[in-house]
Amino acid sequence: MRDWLKDVWRPGKLSRESIRPVNLRYIHIRSVHKIGISVITMKIYFCGSIRGGRQDAEIYERLIDKLQTYGEVLTEHVGSKDVEKNEIDVSDEYIHDRDVRWLEESDVVVAEVTQTSIGVGYEIGRAVAMGKKILCLYRPSPDKRLSAMISGAHNGTTFVVKNYTEEEAEQIFKDFLT
Amino acid sequence: MRDWLKDVWRPGKLSRESIRPVNLRYIHIRSVHKIGISVITMKIYFCGSIRGGRQDAEIYERLIDKLQTYGEVLTEHVGSKDVEKNEIDVSDEYIHDRDVRWLEESDVVVAEVTQTSIGVGYEIGRAVAMGKKILCLYRPSPDKRLSAMISGAHNGTTFVVKNYTEEEAEQIFKDFLT
Repeated sequence: MRDWLKDVWRPGKLSRESIRPVNLRYIHIRSVHKIGISVITMKIYFCGSIRGGRQDAEIYERLIDKLQTYGEVLTEHVGSKDVEKNEIDVSDEYIHDRDVRWLEESDVVVAEVTQTSIGVGYEIGRAVAMGKKILCLYRPSPDKRLSAMISGAHNGTTFVVKNYTEEEAEQIFKDFLT
Repeated sequence: MRDWLKDVWRPGKLSRESIRPVNLRYIHIRSVHKIGISVITMKIYFCGSIRGGRQDAEIYERLIDKLQTYGEVLTEHVGSKDVEKNEIDVSDEYIHDRDVRWLEESDVVVAEVTQTSIGVGYEIGRAVAMGKKILCLYRPSPDKRLSAMISGAHNGTTFVVKNYTEEEAEQIFKDFLT
């Protein structure tokens, strides 16, 4: 990498490896100066259960890791073990307003919908109304059924619901995000 | 009741007792003919968990009973013991599209949000985007916390979140709906 490019590189969010041909459609050159270029990456809003239950937190973390090769995950904290502890000093209103703002900013929404969560449902509902492209991932089990309000919203293009195993996630992201 | 009025009365949805002074603002005379009058009542969309868990189904039924004194509850089936059995022959897409249509038609949305449900969250999110007036009812318990996406959306007027016990529901409905 050229030295001048290193200086304007967005730290921590976009790795050198993520600049692959499949991602080029999401990278637009915003300005070219003598000192270098800045890039705009795809913004991904990831939804996962927090107060609804943290049983799947480690899966969220691994999915977010994979998503970060495609762009910036605005809600990276959803995969963190300390998410609730870290938000103890902020109000629910602050969390709500921040997350709705991130939803508006996002280019795509990826939701893990296996662990039932009213917050995830709310985010998906708001995202539909904003016209976002949405991917919902569900791990089927014999004792559970996904809500008809999620599975029934599937249209194969802007709202995609996928039954999946973790091993399949990488290919699903590739198909959906590139 | 006069005989001609009985003929145009909406069966099963609006009882004679429900015509109380507190409801009059929601009743508009649409047309007066020689044969009688027709009335428009408030349409209420009630949200409760279905596939997310039916532990609170009897509470939903009692809340819906109370709500029916204020208007027509479009989603009366949410309180029925047979809701899942009755919908076994219809697709999730049908359920989703029907419920979104009812949401659009409704004047107010009342959601019981204690039992975590991704479908209820989705309905609330869509309803916010439609500009509906929304009441969320929550029964607090030591081992649960309501999602910040719901409690943080409270604004005291168009989006109201209330901690409640069943005994308080009647007064809460009166305050919110009249």
